[in-house]
Amino acid sequence: MLKCPMIERAKLSDQKEKKGFVIWLTGLSGSGKSTLADEVYDSISANGNRVEKLDGDVMRGVFPATGFTREERDAHIKRVGFVASLLEKHDVIVVASFISPYRKARRLVRDMCSNFIEVFVSVSLDECERRDVKGLYKRARAGEIKDFTGIDAPYEEPQNAEIVVDTESQELEESLAQVMEYIKQYM
Amino acid sequence: MLKCPMIERAKLSDQKEKKGFVIWLTGLSGSGKSTLADEVYDSISANGNRVEKLDGDVMRGVFPATGFTREERDAHIKRVGFVASLLEKHDVIVVASFISPYRKARRLVRDMCSNFIEVFVSVSLDECERRDVKGLYKRARAGEIKDFTGIDAPYEEPQNAEIVVDTESQELEESLAQVMEYIKQYM
Repeated sequence: MLKCPMIERAKLSDQKEKKGFVIWLTGLSGSGKSTLADEVYDSISANGNRVEKLDGDVMRGVFPATGFTREERDAHIKRVGFVASLLEKHDVIVVASFISPYRKARRLVRDMCSNFIEVFVSVSLDECERRDVKGLYKRARAGEIKDFTGIDAPYEEPQNAEIVVDTESQELEESLAQVMEYIKQYM
Repeated sequence: MLKCPMIERAKLSDQKEKKGFVIWLTGLSGSGKSTLADEVYDSISANGNRVEKLDGDVMRGVFPATGFTREERDAHIKRVGFVASLLEKHDVIVVASFISPYRKARRLVRDMCSNFIEVFVSVSLDECERRDVKGLYKRARAGEIKDFTGIDAPYEEPQNAEIVVDTESQELEESLAQVMEYIKQYM
């Protein structure tokens, strides 16, 4: 008679420990952030966890007037940080994928969250430009797009990211394994 | 030996049924939305439920550039609706308190959410102006504030709100009881 209640209590306590956290992928356009974010999201949700993906496409749909000046980018990242931290607070795992080129803005989001895991998706500008999946680099070089990160706007590389993945030399599976290994401590 | 697993399964299934929903309080400035929202929030959270409060103060802190023209208000309510629906999706109960004067914008949020409970906090403009807790009506009458709901901007009353509370004739306790009685079906 005593055994069952004990098992039940242990399980409830396990559940209670499932806290939310924020995986924040930063990197140049074309670095492979979204591809990796999709894989991370799928791996986490496959285990039945509460998880939400936030990225530029989703967020700029809700905030269409957002431009690309430093001020507008910072305000945008702050809003994303607010949404991410709200979800995290309610024990949802957030996979956020944003160029987020400024250190200060990333720091702000880190401070808004309880468990913030910065993933620097590191690829050379040359390689991103070579890939140019969306043709954006070409348009930026032609001056058709202003304030384009890496061309006429800076990308401030993370100095203390929890995880650095190199999608130039690594296979996607390796990058994914690196992230999944790191987040084990929060799962 | 059989009994315990069955009890455990029943409990897990109970937990699974705890879905999120959105309680949306709409009404004039000074109608008592925030006071009622606070009480509703406290009553829900006292039972250990996942609940989040969203209101103008919280949201305009994150979106400081938001103005009060119809277009800006609509965009703002759309953003709030996005955040509310995200939380609801992850089984969080949302208590949202916004003047949200336009029917179309409230309809948009309703459509974004799965379980949307519109609470019309109904008070006459005269009474709101008499209360004028923040001195805003006086400033609006003096022309110091433009596009003020009820003065030089419309308030479109809900026609099919799930709940109508009248904070002019009712005590706060009665309004609270009305809301709590209604949401029982979702708890």
